[in-house]
Amino acid sequence: MTLRVGVLGTGMIGQDHIRRLTQVLSGVDVVAVNDIDRARAATAAPKGAEVFDTPKALINSDKVDAVVICSWGPAHEEQLLDCIAAGKPVFCEKPLVTSEAAARRVIAAEVAHGTRLVQVGFMRRFDADYRRLKKVIDGGSLGAPLMYHSTHRNASVPEGLYTSDMPLNDTLVHDADISRWLLEDEVAAVEVRVPRRNTRGKDLRDPVMVLLHMGSGAIVDVEISVNIAYGYDIRGEVSCENGVAALPNRPAVVVSDQYGIRQAIPEDWRERFIDAYDQEFREWIVAAGQGTATGPSTWDGYAATLVGDAALRAVDSGAREAITMIEKPALYGKAAARAA
Amino acid sequence: MTLRVGVLGTGMIGQDHIRRLTQVLSGVDVVAVNDIDRARAATAAPKGAEVFDTPKALINSDKVDAVVICSWGPAHEEQLLDCIAAGKPVFCEKPLVTSEAAARRVIAAEVAHGTRLVQVGFMRRFDADYRRLKKVIDGGSLGAPLMYHSTHRNASVPEGLYTSDMPLNDTLVHDADISRWLLEDEVAAVEVRVPRRNTRGKDLRDPVMVLLHMGSGAIVDVEISVNIAYGYDIRGEVSCENGVAALPNRPAVVVSDQYGIRQAIPEDWRERFIDAYDQEFREWIVAAGQGTATGPSTWDGYAATLVGDAALRAVDSGAREAITMIEKPALYGKAAARAA
Amino acid sequence: MTLRVGVLGTGMIGQDHIRRLTQVLSGVDVVAVNDIDRARAATAAPKGAEVFDTPKALINSDKVDAVVICSWGPAHEEQLLDCIAAGKPVFCEKPLVTSEAAARRVIAAEVAHGTRLVQVGFMRRFDADYRRLKKVIDGGSLGAPLMYHSTHRNASVPEGLYTSDMPLNDTLVHDADISRWLLEDEVAAVEVRVPRRNTRGKDLRDPVMVLLHMGSGAIVDVEISVNIAYGYDIRGEVSCENGVAALPNRPAVVVSDQYGIRQAIPEDWRERFIDAYDQEFREWIVAAGQGTATGPSTWDGYAATLVGDAALRAVDSGAREAITMIEKPALYGKAAARAA
Amino acid sequence: MTLRVGVLGTGMIGQDHIRRLTQVLSGVDVVAVNDIDRARAATAAPKGAEVFDTPKALINSDKVDAVVICSWGPAHEEQLLDCIAAGKPVFCEKPLVTSEAAARRVIAAEVAHGTRLVQVGFMRRFDADYRRLKKVIDGGSLGAPLMYHSTHRNASVPEGLYTSDMPLNDTLVHDADISRWLLEDEVAAVEVRVPRRNTRGKDLRDPVMVLLHMGSGAIVDVEISVNIAYGYDIRGEVSCENGVAALPNRPAVVVSDQYGIRQAIPEDWRERFIDAYDQEFREWIVAAGQGTATGPSTWDGYAATLVGDAALRAVDSGAREAITMIEKPALYGKAAARAA
Ligand SMILES: [Mg+2]
Ligand SMILES: [Mg+2]
Ligand SMILES: [Mg+2]
Ligand SMILES: [Mg+2]
Repeated sequence: MTLRVGVLGTGMIGQDHIRRLTQVLSGVDVVAVNDIDRARAATAAPKGAEVFDTPKALINSDKVDAVVICSWGPAHEEQLLDCIAAGKPVFCEKPLVTSEAAARRVIAAEVAHGTRLVQVGFMRRFDADYRRLKKVIDGGSLGAPLMYHSTHRNASVPEGLYTSDMPLNDTLVHDADISRWLLEDEVAAVEVRVPRRNTRGKDLRDPVMVLLHMGSGAIVDVEISVNIAYGYDIRGEVSCENGVAALPNRPAVVVSDQYGIRQAIPEDWRERFIDAYDQEFREWIVAAGQGTATGPSTWDGYAATLVGDAALRAVDSGAREAITMIEKPALYGKAAARAA
Repeated sequence: MTLRVGVLGTGMIGQDHIRRLTQVLSGVDVVAVNDIDRARAATAAPKGAEVFDTPKALINSDKVDAVVICSWGPAHEEQLLDCIAAGKPVFCEKPLVTSEAAARRVIAAEVAHGTRLVQVGFMRRFDADYRRLKKVIDGGSLGAPLMYHSTHRNASVPEGLYTSDMPLNDTLVHDADISRWLLEDEVAAVEVRVPRRNTRGKDLRDPVMVLLHMGSGAIVDVEISVNIAYGYDIRGEVSCENGVAALPNRPAVVVSDQYGIRQAIPEDWRERFIDAYDQEFREWIVAAGQGTATGPSTWDGYAATLVGDAALRAVDSGAREAITMIEKPALYGKAAARAA
Repeated sequence: MTLRVGVLGTGMIGQDHIRRLTQVLSGVDVVAVNDIDRARAATAAPKGAEVFDTPKALINSDKVDAVVICSWGPAHEEQLLDCIAAGKPVFCEKPLVTSEAAARRVIAAEVAHGTRLVQVGFMRRFDADYRRLKKVIDGGSLGAPLMYHSTHRNASVPEGLYTSDMPLNDTLVHDADISRWLLEDEVAAVEVRVPRRNTRGKDLRDPVMVLLHMGSGAIVDVEISVNIAYGYDIRGEVSCENGVAALPNRPAVVVSDQYGIRQAIPEDWRERFIDAYDQEFREWIVAAGQGTATGPSTWDGYAATLVGDAALRAVDSGAREAITMIEKPALYGKAAARAA
Repeated sequence: MTLRVGVLGTGMIGQDHIRRLTQVLSGVDVVAVNDIDRARAATAAPKGAEVFDTPKALINSDKVDAVVICSWGPAHEEQLLDCIAAGKPVFCEKPLVTSEAAARRVIAAEVAHGTRLVQVGFMRRFDADYRRLKKVIDGGSLGAPLMYHSTHRNASVPEGLYTSDMPLNDTLVHDADISRWLLEDEVAAVEVRVPRRNTRGKDLRDPVMVLLHMGSGAIVDVEISVNIAYGYDIRGEVSCENGVAALPNRPAVVVSDQYGIRQAIPEDWRERFIDAYDQEFREWIVAAGQGTATGPSTWDGYAATLVGDAALRAVDSGAREAITMIEKPALYGKAAARAA
């Protein structure tokens, strides 16, 4: 009853997930790996795992019950379609795919298959703090949520590799997804404003301010700062009709010393979300063992793709860029209520 | 050497300032009052103070060294011009005046007079917390300020009296002024977005989200919520190049009981800013005793008027409404550096 | 390579550990159970586990690689000695045993065996917050620890079942152990003071204040309050030569509503330490799989027994009750440095 | 109606009070000064104030309505008795006097006079935070107070000048007084324990731990650390029957930077209690203007003297040193209820 997993892509995130699946979590074995760099795959393969020559061979192997996709984005569509064709549960790191059309093809394939097979790697939904926040909002004692202030700060990004589009089509995806999930709503339109530039990032467009206009009329404002030096700081506050609720501080020793009364800040997303990644896979393993998927879906990946596309349009146009979604297939649950 | 003050307008705020000037502060006496309702003025007059029939008579009386204007907004322009004509220092509650043209006339008169006489009632600049925050930003260790998140929440507003324009032309004035002061910059343009409505306020446009585009490119985003029930909650956070600084929590006993680990929130602006009001007048008394004014100026009142006007235009147009200011008279200091 | 575990005692804590071992943790199976109430054992037994008639039969079964003792305290000595005789790793819930003499017999047996086999259930050492606190102290930047303020508050205790001795010989054990671990020191003497009584507990001796005089001279003061109603609140602060370090608050949504700015408090030890219990067993499984034990040892259980005994003497005598320990066997590491 | 004040003693604290009385507060003038060092008195004298040759001459001058004693402790008794003989209100910095016998002589004189004239300089009672804390306790929602944890930390003390007795007969006085006031109770006995020494203070007895056994049975435990380097940190927490209440943090900007999420700590008592000192005199001026005194009384100074004496006995004896008070004169209010 141990889930036999094949991993596609053995770069940094792939290696981390292999570690997680082999050393941290139970009920799962990594039995197969593949990478465009075969030597890297061989190095990353845990003892006893087979190194496959192609993604398709791995996906279709009888050894493999379920697949984890950690390859680069452009490869995702084909790998996802192959998994669906093989009827195998698949965990896909973000981005789901790299275009709206591709997202719609994956949706069509999964809908044709008839049951969910895909879980997308939006790990924030598995973070205990975000779950606590959602529970408070869902409890209803604060009334309807009207605004959500989301703050997304990175200490630094790799110069040269991280481009000015990436705050909007890469980093923003987490804020977009968590906003949809927290507010149980879709993003109807996107605006982007560009504040005074942070000189630490040279010519990089940083910070950016994004407004997500939700279907209900609630507004999400996002600060994305990617070179803020002091740490990886993820904050969120929901302003409701008669109260507000905010993400807790991360637990950290309260030290009183020459620098004041202070608490440490996580250095990076690994430190901040390590437990969320574990929980994300814990729940995936259970669902995959039953031949299906729960958690963030192909639909959520599609929605995130649309938000990223709209954000890129919005930063160019300066205008409010509307998002038009296809009708939501029943497979992905009922459409968001657009309360007003 | 006691400053002899005349108070114009003895409504709620006028009465509170009379209390402050007679019972809390030193070096000052209230010797004259005037109100459109003479009986109200008589009741509010402290022992020994004369009740004047007209604002002009009070302003021009030899008994009166300096004037405090607490009348309604439309009366301010004439009273201010009379004070300047009489060469008397004057404290003017907000709004300075009710139109851009009026503000320019007051500026012209004061410039012609040659020294500052007017202090406008933007009390937040005298609040110890805001001063601490400014000191940190000015210290420079966090780098340039890029975004300022300002949160302005009222437990409730009087139904019927408080209209949908007032978040923008009344409440916003404090956030606009404190943003200009904290960032040492002017507002170049204003945008307004209207989130899902708070049903507690019925048809009232509440909350509103305001974006102030500062001359430097820094963006200020303001949440104004005026029926949020839980308290009067004023927050602010400046996001800089390599760190952020936030207003402190108000001091309040940390109680651990059946409701959690908790601290009380101020009920209203009187509780929150009571010390700021005292300090505002403390500094006014010193300057007025020297025949002049420091603190928020006619220029600051003019700027606030422009922001309010632009915000009203912006909520109608949905667009970015630019602000065009006259050249800043030397009397009001040097123009804001527009660093970019 | 799955560790096959037998569980002795299937009451509340035994059932919880069975759940943990079967549903939460990996690398482990519960293959055997025993309880003085055979029907209860049968009900608690996971699928496929054998119900043994006696502890000894379970301990000596070839099926069983390692043992978890959750029986009542007076049964622990014999079960521990049987485990050691069988050379099997054993996790023993607190109390290790119920007398100093018994503790010394278990030590003697384990020392004769030559390697560690016993881990005692002091779960606080596995709590992420306490570990963060220890890391800060160990880092040395605050200088030597001089005082440790430990606060141990329970919302309530079961009336009638929880006696006036239990704050000292049951509840205190956790503060004593964590003090020894944090400060890397032994308790040299104990004093107890009894404050004004909490009327919620009727005649119960509650709260109590305990002073632990550590070998180094550091003083630990403990507040034990067991009927404080508002929650389960575990706090700790180490006062050092040039700074202090405190346990973090538990992560909890920061809600601003009519009760203030507030965060929830755990209801009980299950909620507070659920992750610590998991981690405690995670580390035990690794060591037991290697035929040994790490974590809190028989020596630590012996020390806790001595502190409880001394506290009971101290509450009667009102005096400082010294603790005399046997020489520390090398098996348990080097003796605590008694820096002064 | 301006209160004409004479100041005895123009050292550091005397100079600070002269500044306060002349520059900060209203309704008061400093018209006379005296110091054992006449040149120092002349320098410290505000414009127009007379420098007196002797304390008695100042006290008895018709120019002087009320007296502020800032001379050294051994001079207080005679100056207080002279003030009482002259029927003049007097503010006396701590210590009231330097022996129990002297305290009783001052009490006797004031009781014979028939109305209160003396206010002792226990400024914490005027601190807004402590007042908020007392209000919560007095509100009664938390039930009876059972323990009070008081933390008194100084960054440093002057080497050589500050002796090992001073934590107990000088620093402790504030914790003792605030405990009596918060709990509305007397100290019945004192114990002192001496933890491991802070090497920063060389041979200085630092820190010390003091237990105050209150009449009601409530226990106050005090940490006094006088060389803790990181700041001046005054904390307090009252543990009650069904909840706890703690002093708020001082308001300070919340900075997130490379040192963490942090708030500054006051450097010294001047910074921490500057507002309390102002308020202390504000209330004194009002009472003195009416020819009497409110606030901390001769009785409170007497109680503090007894606690300091008992603490010195206790550190030598290692035992619980009881305090026996004379019957409380009606002039000082009713005796503390000894609820149990
Ligand atoms: Mg992810
Ligand atoms: Mg104002
Ligand atoms: Mg335990
Ligand atoms: Mg004092």
